[in-house]
Amino acid sequence: MASSIEKFDLIIIGSGPAGYLAAILAARKSCSIAVIERAELGGTCLNRGCIPTKALLHEGFIWHHLAGTGFVKNREETASYFKYALGKKTDAVSQVVSGIRRLLARDSITLIQGDASFVSSRTLSVKREGKVIRQLESDRILIASGAVPVEVPPLRKDGRRILGSDEALNMTELPQSMAIVGGGKRGVEFGTFFNTFGVSVTVIEKESRILPKMDREISVRYRGLLTKRGIKIVTDAQIVAADLSKEKDSAALRIIQKGKEEKLEFQKVLVVGDRRGNTDGLDAAKASLTLKDGFIAVDSRMKTSAPGVYAAGDVAGKGFFAHKAFLEAETAVRNLLGEDRQMDYRFIPTCLYSYPEAASVGLTEEEAKAKYKEIKIGKFPFVGCGRAVAASEQDGMVKIISEAQYGEILGVHILGPRATELIHLGAMAMKHEIGIEEIKDMTFAHPTFSEAFFEAALDISDEAIHIMKE
Amino acid sequence: MASSIEKFDLIIIGSGPAGYLAAILAARKSCSIAVIERAELGGTCLNRGCIPTKALLHEGFIWHHLAGTGFVKNREETASYFKYALGKKTDAVSQVVSGIRRLLARDSITLIQGDASFVSSRTLSVKREGKVIRQLESDRILIASGAVPVEVPPLRKDGRRILGSDEALNMTELPQSMAIVGGGKRGVEFGTFFNTFGVSVTVIEKESRILPKMDREISVRYRGLLTKRGIKIVTDAQIVAADLSKEKDSAALRIIQKGKEEKLEFQKVLVVGDRRGNTDGLDAAKASLTLKDGFIAVDSRMKTSAPGVYAAGDVAGKGFFAHKAFLEAETAVRNLLGEDRQMDYRFIPTCLYSYPEAASVGLTEEEAKAKYKEIKIGKFPFVGCGRAVAASEQDGMVKIISEAQYGEILGVHILGPRATELIHLGAMAMKHEIGIEEIKDMTFAHPTFSEAFFEAALDISDEAIHIMKE
Repeated sequence: MASSIEKFDLIIIGSGPAGYLAAILAARKSCSIAVIERAELGGTCLNRGCIPTKALLHEGFIWHHLAGTGFVKNREETASYFKYALGKKTDAVSQVVSGIRRLLARDSITLIQGDASFVSSRTLSVKREGKVIRQLESDRILIASGAVPVEVPPLRKDGRRILGSDEALNMTELPQSMAIVGGGKRGVEFGTFFNTFGVSVTVIEKESRILPKMDREISVRYRGLLTKRGIKIVTDAQIVAADLSKEKDSAALRIIQKGKEEKLEFQKVLVVGDRRGNTDGLDAAKASLTLKDGFIAVDSRMKTSAPGVYAAGDVAGKGFFAHKAFLEAETAVRNLLGEDRQMDYRFIPTCLYSYPEAASVGLTEEEAKAKYKEIKIGKFPFVGCGRAVAASEQDGMVKIISEAQYGEILGVHILGPRATELIHLGAMAMKHEIGIEEIKDMTFAHPTFSEAFFEAALDISDEAIHIMKE
Repeated sequence: MASSIEKFDLIIIGSGPAGYLAAILAARKSCSIAVIERAELGGTCLNRGCIPTKALLHEGFIWHHLAGTGFVKNREETASYFKYALGKKTDAVSQVVSGIRRLLARDSITLIQGDASFVSSRTLSVKREGKVIRQLESDRILIASGAVPVEVPPLRKDGRRILGSDEALNMTELPQSMAIVGGGKRGVEFGTFFNTFGVSVTVIEKESRILPKMDREISVRYRGLLTKRGIKIVTDAQIVAADLSKEKDSAALRIIQKGKEEKLEFQKVLVVGDRRGNTDGLDAAKASLTLKDGFIAVDSRMKTSAPGVYAAGDVAGKGFFAHKAFLEAETAVRNLLGEDRQMDYRFIPTCLYSYPEAASVGLTEEEAKAKYKEIKIGKFPFVGCGRAVAASEQDGMVKIISEAQYGEILGVHILGPRATELIHLGAMAMKHEIGIEEIKDMTFAHPTFSEAFFEAALDISDEAIHIMKE
């Protein structure tokens, strides 16, 4: 039992990107800060999300490239490289986590391992194994507790055949076949990764297309690429039952697709579906916090319904990106420390790190058409880009959507090599009002993948160079 | 013997980047165009420069990564992958060359194979095997004939032991040891490539550092990385003699370094030193063309000393980049067709495609210090970048130089993964006056390599997040 209440200038629940960034920023303003973490320092991003998946995907990319050369000889080598990739993933996670640990220590941030729960809107208790070990108080509290998967009946995880992304990241043996339930970003990333290592992959998506939040054209083209690689895509699909009889080492899924029922059998089923705000054990009601659609409700300043209490990152909804969490955390901290800042979600890129990469910023073609009287679209395929030819990475294209009159860029959508880096050219242009004519006025190095962005801008006025148009 | 003189709106000598771009741009203005090419369509860039080297370097990168994993087992596999890389290079070259051939045909551009020489400043004859096959006339002539290596005595190429880059690109067997004479961009690219495939490489440079045109810090760090990989670097070195006795299968070089003489033996010597404008056989005097330091002299509009005659690309000096050639060619064509355009070399990036990559735009630290009263420097090492950690590509850094008062960006220098793409963020910012504060206001996707650019901007005001400062 904690004897006294400790006071801090700022208490943060969760040490993922939103939490640790908020702590570092507030420390620069000489605040005393406590960060309460239930599980691993660094949260989902560092331990079970961004970093480990990118480490795996990077090794997957190398192996994929190599497989195309004929240098991969057999299943044993593939399995062995898969294990190597797992090791690299573990190394990467441990490096970034210890980096964050050092930063928090440098800034004298008090890191408390345990479960936070509200006693009032300004008091928190921290429990370990159900027992209160400390009590903390502050006028400023930031909830950055992340998100957790929503269980999709009938797919209850059993850690053996029905897996979540955590278990998928820790698989040590490659299955023969795998269903991936959820065809959004994470589903596609896992799908390409396991496909690279020879697993027979089926992606099952309830919407009419994979990557349903991305520009339709990118999504349709991506589907074509996945199919070409032998990944089976099942859209408009509802899983109505899972047969997990004990005698078998596989799961049989009953799927209804446009009224037709099918039964498919998989050795593993990976569920990467919806997520909800991780408010478990928070006792949110004691702080009079309002929840909305499973997330903590916040205003444009990241303020919750309780005075002095803010939320940022996955727990506040609106997508699960670490950089969205960074921006929200910065906004929250500034407001908590007396500034007045509002969130602007318009120029936040979305990235897909599978092979090939894809990325977006701004409006999709459909959104732009709905919002603007007249738009222009410039496209350039990587097959016309010398650097892409030299790297044997010719699938994909850059697509720029601009407003017709002044050439303002409304959206950039990239499918192909370096998409997750090139997208920042679009983000910079959009954020700082650099239009099509200004892009055309730049000199892009040859040969680079970035030239495809330049050529797409040229294509807005039919001036692209390195391509034949039909 | 050609019977009559053919008239064109524009005659272009050379079909490399400057030549083919000028042709495509002029064709859009309904000009009749002849392009005269002595050797391969596409010039150095497509056949012996940018494209083939990038194809080789890309495969080298894959093999280098793989070598670090322990999956490369023996010398035979390495030799076999080297041959695979050569094949990919040939494929890439043939794809881009046939692409350009189709573009020229689409635009009804007359492509003439032969040696061009001036008869007067508006008349050219085209010879094949010494015989005049055609005579052409135009009020507008663009010389885009490229550059050729300057022979460095005592290193006369013999195609066996003393090679130029053309021969190096066509080597089918890996030598045991290789000297690379010239430690500029091409020397370093070839050096890392052959090192990757197990060749014992020594880079010999006459200046006091490799990459002498790049920012000193990048150059010094690059040297460290090369040394770590086992590449020997000899700077301040003069080759005074080459012993090529017939009995031996190697070349012995006598090198003087800071007054000390040394004799080193290599199986192959690759000379990638200086280049001069390729004016061979042009009969430049007949058009009253002025040459300067081995290149055709041009003004800021790319106009030569002869009326109606312009030059662009390598033949006009000022560096050997295809994208510089593109910009010069565009400038020349606009001026030839009645506009008034001047060259602006300030925002042209320089790229190094070896592993790791490096790239620059704008002023070096030394140049900025000389030109501005007060500058600020922001740096961020890739070791603090999650994406770089995940990809095991942690060597290098982003360095941004800004003017102290208004935060104007003066130069960006990148050593590390994706440098040749990330540099365009710097180029865009500099060209369109996006300063440090505006960069800090952007949202960069996590985890991406581009975040290192963002963090370097933050570091200008000591606000970088993911790094411990000493």
